[in-house]
Amino acid sequence: MSRYWSPIVSKLRPYVAGEQPRIPGLIKLNTNENPYGPSPRALEAIGQAADDRLRLYPDPTATELRETIAHRFGLAADEVFVGNGSDEVLAHSFQALLKHELPLLYPDVSYPFYPAYSLLYDVETVEVPVDDRFRILLADYDRPCGAILIPNPNAPTGIGLPLAEIETLVTTHPDAVVAIDEAYVDFGAESAVPLISEYPNLLVIQTLSKSRSLAGLRVGFALGQRHLIEALVRVKDSFNSYPLDRLAQAAATAAIKDEAWFETCRRKLVASRDALVRDLETLDFEVLPSQANFIFARHESRPGAALQAALRERGVLVRHFAKPRISEFLRISIGTDEECARLVSALKDILAA
Amino acid sequence: MSRYWSPIVSKLRPYVAGEQPRIPGLIKLNTNENPYGPSPRALEAIGQAADDRLRLYPDPTATELRETIAHRFGLAADEVFVGNGSDEVLAHSFQALLKHELPLLYPDVSYPFYPAYSLLYDVETVEVPVDDRFRILLADYDRPCGAILIPNPNAPTGIGLPLAEIETLVTTHPDAVVAIDEAYVDFGAESAVPLISEYPNLLVIQTLSKSRSLAGLRVGFALGQRHLIEALVRVKDSFNSYPLDRLAQAAATAAIKDEAWFETCRRKLVASRDALVRDLETLDFEVLPSQANFIFARHESRPGAALQAALRERGVLVRHFAKPRISEFLRISIGTDEECARLVSALKDILAA
Repeated sequence: MSRYWSPIVSKLRPYVAGEQPRIPGLIKLNTNENPYGPSPRALEAIGQAADDRLRLYPDPTATELRETIAHRFGLAADEVFVGNGSDEVLAHSFQALLKHELPLLYPDVSYPFYPAYSLLYDVETVEVPVDDRFRILLADYDRPCGAILIPNPNAPTGIGLPLAEIETLVTTHPDAVVAIDEAYVDFGAESAVPLISEYPNLLVIQTLSKSRSLAGLRVGFALGQRHLIEALVRVKDSFNSYPLDRLAQAAATAAIKDEAWFETCRRKLVASRDALVRDLETLDFEVLPSQANFIFARHESRPGAALQAALRERGVLVRHFAKPRISEFLRISIGTDEECARLVSALKDILAA
Repeated sequence: MSRYWSPIVSKLRPYVAGEQPRIPGLIKLNTNENPYGPSPRALEAIGQAADDRLRLYPDPTATELRETIAHRFGLAADEVFVGNGSDEVLAHSFQALLKHELPLLYPDVSYPFYPAYSLLYDVETVEVPVDDRFRILLADYDRPCGAILIPNPNAPTGIGLPLAEIETLVTTHPDAVVAIDEAYVDFGAESAVPLISEYPNLLVIQTLSKSRSLAGLRVGFALGQRHLIEALVRVKDSFNSYPLDRLAQAAATAAIKDEAWFETCRRKLVASRDALVRDLETLDFEVLPSQANFIFARHESRPGAALQAALRERGVLVRHFAKPRISEFLRISIGTDEECARLVSALKDILAA
């Protein structure tokens, strides 16, 4: 620490992202990327936008992209906010909508970035424990709060909440913003977007990093009624006029329009996930029921950290969190069938030793 | 405003960027973009990176880009911080380094985003008046402060401070962070980068949007000793792990390496600026001495707002700020010689009426 730091800096606990090694041949199942590439139309759109016009600022309001997202979800363009990955959208949400006198509630087992945002913006929070089967129980949220944030499906567990339960949460907390982080929703959970027109306190956050295979391009968005989106816009316009560059706007617009590609890739992924779960269960893993593009699994006898290290030695990266309650688990992103087979084969090898 | 907003939101005064109209044929001299396109090598690098690898997250630490910038400026990679445009870098600097118990000082006539950041992060500030010739006078900064932020050259005036004066500011305020916003430095002012090794309190912020013609790609950076950069990294890693996408990292790296392109473009621009100043002076404009890629000029009899509107009718966009002290002025970005000629011809037409 340094005397030149603003007081907040030494209080932060920055999020540590999964490693992005550059070792060729690695099977990379550690950061929940999609094993299939983005829509070819997105790549074409980049080619068409990559010219001398890059000397000009992008559209600060990303109008075409917001209109495209709005059309896809049956909303109006001013019910859509876009940002530099859903991480940025979440950060602005913490500052604009989730910080109140009463605490923000979120599950104790969830996206580890939430506590980092809370410290950054000095948001009072309560981490609500999931139950012993890692489920979010609505009754635990019956307490005074300023806002609620639920990842659906949850990460890193992969467990989804049915839409009816989300609706109950929204209706029983009419004075609190209820934000649903749907980063992984397209792999089997139910989106809360159809509830937006009815509930002024519902915000839904999604990303193009997972189901649309554009992690490398950094585009996320929030959907909600106008007054919620306006709060995000006000923070964004006090932070960075142009968070989305020209190429990201063009490619994201094309990707959202390519519904066929999206459908094909997510179906393949769900089939691979279901097959991998069966394979792991035959190897004595307990796998939590996943509606995401990853699974959360623990072996009946081998500790998570040791398994992660042994897999890494065999060229397979998976994620392990050295945290209370979940340190026995591995979080494994779903790869292609070939990558999943390589993982299973490495695990057999390790478990035979 | 809405009851769901966090308390900060209604206090914000968001920055309003210059318009980005999509009307073909407009002469766009309102947002200080470079009239010349980016390095062809930057465009090539985008083509090479725009493939299936976009499904993968970018390097969260942007190592290659930081190493390239470090090499260009004679620094180490951990003395370089990169972000999604210098606007994001400035935002993080306000939160990480410019917020203290004693106020932050910056000139009253300067980048209008500074007050927006100050409200967003609740930074105590004092706007120090420039003198009646719009100059920053060092003596005015001899007051208790936690940090100082100086744009050099200043925007929207274009007036630069000599390096010796920057050094005086840094040495006379050893306990305060002195941040120099060098967005426009490459068009004629002296960079403070050579002072970094000597002064632990000096932070320099630059952008690829202006002299490297990549406004559409959103890449900015900060240079300073390790402890200052570490504060920015801690805030960034509590905000967004991957602020720079794969294409932006690749193109920015290539652009920084193409020193020849950079030199050619900036020389052409400086020559056009000097010619435009002469032309405007013959039309009875007072032009402040500019070291930037724009000029700040007022006519001896015609008000700024009326001139801006009349130019817009003739298809020429320039920027006008309806603010105390500067409302008579137009801020005019330097275009190609042909664009400058169109501006001069439109002005002659207006002034003859």
